[in-house]
Amino acid sequence: MARAPVYYGDYLKLDRLLSAQEPESVKAGVDAHDEMLFIIVHQAYELWFKQILHELDRIEADFGTIPVTDDAMGRVVHGLNRIHEILKLVVGQLDVLETMTPFDFLDFRDLLMPASGFQSLQFRLIETRLGLAPATRVPFDDKAIDERLSERDRAAFRAAGEKPSLFDLLDQWLARTPFLDWGGATFRDAYRAAVEKHLARDAEMVRSDPAIPQEKRERDLRNIERAIASFSAIFSATDDNGGWRLSGSAVQAALFITLYRDKPAAQQPFRLLAALMDIDETMTLWRYRHALMVERMIGVKIGTGGSSGHAYLRTTAERHRIFGDLFRLSSFLIPRSAVPELPAQVQARMGFVTAS
Amino acid sequence: MARAPVYYGDYLKLDRLLSAQEPESVKAGVDAHDEMLFIIVHQAYELWFKQILHELDRIEADFGTIPVTDDAMGRVVHGLNRIHEILKLVVGQLDVLETMTPFDFLDFRDLLMPASGFQSLQFRLIETRLGLAPATRVPFDDKAIDERLSERDRAAFRAAGEKPSLFDLLDQWLARTPFLDWGGATFRDAYRAAVEKHLARDAEMVRSDPAIPQEKRERDLRNIERAIASFSAIFSATDDNGGWRLSGSAVQAALFITLYRDKPAAQQPFRLLAALMDIDETMTLWRYRHALMVERMIGVKIGTGGSSGHAYLRTTAERHRIFGDLFRLSSFLIPRSAVPELPAQVQARMGFVTAS
Amino acid sequence: MARAPVYYGDYLKLDRLLSAQEPESVKAGVDAHDEMLFIIVHQAYELWFKQILHELDRIEADFGTIPVTDDAMGRVVHGLNRIHEILKLVVGQLDVLETMTPFDFLDFRDLLMPASGFQSLQFRLIETRLGLAPATRVPFDDKAIDERLSERDRAAFRAAGEKPSLFDLLDQWLARTPFLDWGGATFRDAYRAAVEKHLARDAEMVRSDPAIPQEKRERDLRNIERAIASFSAIFSATDDNGGWRLSGSAVQAALFITLYRDKPAAQQPFRLLAALMDIDETMTLWRYRHALMVERMIGVKIGTGGSSGHAYLRTTAERHRIFGDLFRLSSFLIPRSAVPELPAQVQARMGFVTAS
Amino acid sequence: MARAPVYYGDYLKLDRLLSAQEPESVKAGVDAHDEMLFIIVHQAYELWFKQILHELDRIEADFGTIPVTDDAMGRVVHGLNRIHEILKLVVGQLDVLETMTPFDFLDFRDLLMPASGFQSLQFRLIETRLGLAPATRVPFDDKAIDERLSERDRAAFRAAGEKPSLFDLLDQWLARTPFLDWGGATFRDAYRAAVEKHLARDAEMVRSDPAIPQEKRERDLRNIERAIASFSAIFSATDDNGGWRLSGSAVQAALFITLYRDKPAAQQPFRLLAALMDIDETMTLWRYRHALMVERMIGVKIGTGGSSGHAYLRTTAERHRIFGDLFRLSSFLIPRSAVPELPAQVQARMGFVTAS
Repeated sequence: MARAPVYYGDYLKLDRLLSAQEPESVKAGVDAHDEMLFIIVHQAYELWFKQILHELDRIEADFGTIPVTDDAMGRVVHGLNRIHEILKLVVGQLDVLETMTPFDFLDFRDLLMPASGFQSLQFRLIETRLGLAPATRVPFDDKAIDERLSERDRAAFRAAGEKPSLFDLLDQWLARTPFLDWGGATFRDAYRAAVEKHLARDAEMVRSDPAIPQEKRERDLRNIERAIASFSAIFSATDDNGGWRLSGSAVQAALFITLYRDKPAAQQPFRLLAALMDIDETMTLWRYRHALMVERMIGVKIGTGGSSGHAYLRTTAERHRIFGDLFRLSSFLIPRSAVPELPAQVQARMGFVTAS
Repeated sequence: MARAPVYYGDYLKLDRLLSAQEPESVKAGVDAHDEMLFIIVHQAYELWFKQILHELDRIEADFGTIPVTDDAMGRVVHGLNRIHEILKLVVGQLDVLETMTPFDFLDFRDLLMPASGFQSLQFRLIETRLGLAPATRVPFDDKAIDERLSERDRAAFRAAGEKPSLFDLLDQWLARTPFLDWGGATFRDAYRAAVEKHLARDAEMVRSDPAIPQEKRERDLRNIERAIASFSAIFSATDDNGGWRLSGSAVQAALFITLYRDKPAAQQPFRLLAALMDIDETMTLWRYRHALMVERMIGVKIGTGGSSGHAYLRTTAERHRIFGDLFRLSSFLIPRSAVPELPAQVQARMGFVTAS
Repeated sequence: MARAPVYYGDYLKLDRLLSAQEPESVKAGVDAHDEMLFIIVHQAYELWFKQILHELDRIEADFGTIPVTDDAMGRVVHGLNRIHEILKLVVGQLDVLETMTPFDFLDFRDLLMPASGFQSLQFRLIETRLGLAPATRVPFDDKAIDERLSERDRAAFRAAGEKPSLFDLLDQWLARTPFLDWGGATFRDAYRAAVEKHLARDAEMVRSDPAIPQEKRERDLRNIERAIASFSAIFSATDDNGGWRLSGSAVQAALFITLYRDKPAAQQPFRLLAALMDIDETMTLWRYRHALMVERMIGVKIGTGGSSGHAYLRTTAERHRIFGDLFRLSSFLIPRSAVPELPAQVQARMGFVTAS
Repeated sequence: MARAPVYYGDYLKLDRLLSAQEPESVKAGVDAHDEMLFIIVHQAYELWFKQILHELDRIEADFGTIPVTDDAMGRVVHGLNRIHEILKLVVGQLDVLETMTPFDFLDFRDLLMPASGFQSLQFRLIETRLGLAPATRVPFDDKAIDERLSERDRAAFRAAGEKPSLFDLLDQWLARTPFLDWGGATFRDAYRAAVEKHLARDAEMVRSDPAIPQEKRERDLRNIERAIASFSAIFSATDDNGGWRLSGSAVQAALFITLYRDKPAAQQPFRLLAALMDIDETMTLWRYRHALMVERMIGVKIGTGGSSGHAYLRTTAERHRIFGDLFRLSSFLIPRSAVPELPAQVQARMGFVTAS
């Protein structure tokens, strides 16, 4: 049964796509050349958001099915890296948007009221599905973001918030890591011992070096004590320790993966964590750069009595971060030479069959 | 009369935009996850093409109305720089597309037959309106590109070819440059004299330096003679000289602008020429990179008896260049110290009133 | 007199350049492969800083010689655009640096103590010469930055602080703008009248539209009153008005250039302002991205009792901004149709002689 | 034993680094502002080349020690990805260099004669160590590139050519792949059978579809025959088959890795191949863009009787490619559904111990 030949323009639905630009300025009989650019940039964003959500569909399915198979894991990492590439691209779209001057923007700015990027349902969905908790969202002008959505969009937004996010899936997947049981002891015990030994050696060096002035010696020793105390944040036995959003076992698993990343069974997990940090970092940069662009375009908004958009956006740059725990992990690394060696039997289990 | 409030999703026609992705693999009941990416990338291209055409609309109107006012000239240069920024962005989209592996592409590649990027009407229009002459287009598989278009697209494509292109407008605008008449003499005469003096001095140095071995001296002198001959390409009195696509007076005007770029009346013209070279260079790079991407994705196509896509694309990288004449100009510059000084009265006419 | 032939490696002093990498880890007998990358990245930064300072040398000379000639102005704008390109490049160097993982950094991190990027004299000089006032610098750990410099570096740093910065030169150059005198009245008077008329019309529309509910009407009118009040920040007769760092006449000149940018005599000035904003924005992004990178690399530093580096860097992102006034200007624009027309005689003085 | 405190400027040898710029124009008493940029760009290139060579040192050591351990493989892939990031960065340096106009370049161009980028020893070493065979190098002006090097540089260049290149190491490593033996049969046999079955099914569909016109049917069948013939290039029993530079077993191993990339033991190998293609592609783009830049800067060189630099560079873009075989592989893929399933015992050997 022969298929009908496919024509480029039909395949891409260009009739629909290229007729979807309806500048308000044209309707208002105003000549505002740059409104087309404004529309196209935002439509391009929305196309890419759709792609990101398409990737999240598969990532959630693969990562949410227990156990996560090797093939599934390969797809998850690949999809996250693709999301990262897309985010880098869309940050670059600001270079194009910034060819519009504030004075040209003014030609049509008021015609768009009160539309706002806050109303992008897809962007909200991406944040929520990655793991931005509704309670964490910074409200804008004392009004929760979702009040600004249409009823239909609000329903979709809320539904997304009720499913486990990528952050949740990560937390659970990390907590299942099979390599933390070191036969009797645990990785946590071994790492705690290693940390203590390492810091004790540091303290010993400080104490025994006559060249160090008394004042400096005391300061150094106090610092080492503080370091020991700070490490307790990862050794707590309970699961609601020291300000982490991840559970205690998840934190330990993430640390384990970071330290033993070159062992075969840790390679993909390590790439997964790296991809999540890349995504977090690029989204943060995007928010920040977006804030600067808004400031350049609108200045400090006057006369509306409300918060300024750029100040709000700048706040979200930090407060809407999702995988900050992974960045924080770096504080708890110790030098390679001090890291406990993997027990032979754990190491064996992390290798390939072929090598055995 | 109060305007209705605008909602983000309505303004951007998201219903239309986000329902325009209909993967062939879905219709065929095949699981080809990456087809969505393939569609989205190409739709994003087409959105940006629409924006480029929107800019060309204004550029042609401004640049085609004689005389070109200062305001119009400002808009033309601004529009060209924006096109350049857009081109840089779309080159970057290949980074995202390349996250699709050849093996994943194979999941749906055959379902798209015989659709092809050659069928992008908007891209053809951009090339034609910039100035790619139909006769210059490299045919693909002995078939003119426009045979691959639908009837409606072909008509639009041909209509575009009948209007003056940006290249044509540039040619005419350059030829009208009012500063080439140097009161009795012309810029051409003065520059010819300067070139001859400069090269004669070089020759004299070679002849009079006893440290230069005889063989090298002869070679150097032959080279200087060749240089003198080559310069005739810009001094010809007739207008169909030496392989330029631009007319003789346009070439001289472009040279003039390049040499006296800092005089007020030459500043925008110089930026115009630079923007055209930026566009030409970035489109060339894009074609070339596109060719590499196709090679990576498809390899050397086998079994169809036709040309390979990537070899064709690589050919167009050079042969579809439009503003190559501007690059060629660099061959005809002489050092700043040898450049003839502007006659006082020409210089005065190129300045601001305020300074007088 | 024949010149000696030049050899690539000698010209670039490669012997010196490529022997300037002396990893501390090598001296300490430690295998820390990535220290080479760390050194090379920072050396590449310093090379580019030297180039930026080289551009600033010429910019200061050109921009500081009164009157600034057309040629000089062309060079100033060109130099600023080049600095912007360099800044974009060096931001990109973080992509390379981030291929180093925190765990690999730990292999040599402690060996570098207490060296720190804060000790880059050239970066401090760039900030200071652009216009970062010493008093504005955020201190780090209650210690002025310059205390961390060696004596020689500190002297160079202080000397730079005593010369007029680019910000100062800009302030003075703007204040000299010759087009603010509109024959009897001033641009300021005309613009104030235009703003008042524009806002009065807005108020009238709000008052006379029966469709607007009472509560919204009152809110709208209050906002318009606030807007009128806020505009006073640019209409103050004295020169120490409303929190601007620029003088009052400089602010008005910058506003004038923004509004009449397409008039020939305003084109280069407009490009100048745009280039300064580009530089400010890119430096800000760089600082912010740098802060994120440090957080990723080091986490929240523990045990030293000091501030964390990334929090400090994040603070400087905003507080070390230099040309924020130019961004703020956007708040004081009114729509094109409301902008007062240039008096014929001012317009004539801003045009080219040739057109007259 | 306390270490001496490290100072930023000393650590980076800034005295040496920042005194290594000695413009020829300064020596000649000429004012050529942009020569500093020219020097700095090239010095930055050379710094990055040193880093690339530093990575190649470790990659060669790790990849050349048999067997390649898991840790070593992790480092190899990581190092290649870093080289790719560096290459992307240095391509971007052209954006900065292109802020120099041809006319400004002319201020010092002749003073550099006959120095040339061809004399960059480090760049030659990178090409050679990656695998560019001396015999493949395109000669410039009928003169082998190495004749242009100083005696010392030429010796270093030749020595590098005598060691196994990365290409050689890849070839040998691929040929050792342990998974091609499918118990009695080989992967090659299984894949040949699958290809034949797949194409036979295609032929059957063409033959049995009455809707296909006779002429098209014959053409389609001829194409399928040609496809069958073309596949012989990967099924040849001998090792010098069909124009591959890789050995026959290496080609089959590369194909195997491409098809079964998600199996644990194939993941790093797949990333290795992808990284090599990324490097090849980015170096090719760089050469091509470099050629365009030279054309823009110098035009078509006149009067020297030699080849033009940009034409030469453009030629090398294709002819100096090293890992073209990996791109060619895409021609020999068949759809996922037609790919032979891995025998259970091979699949088991490619998994992790932990899963068993």
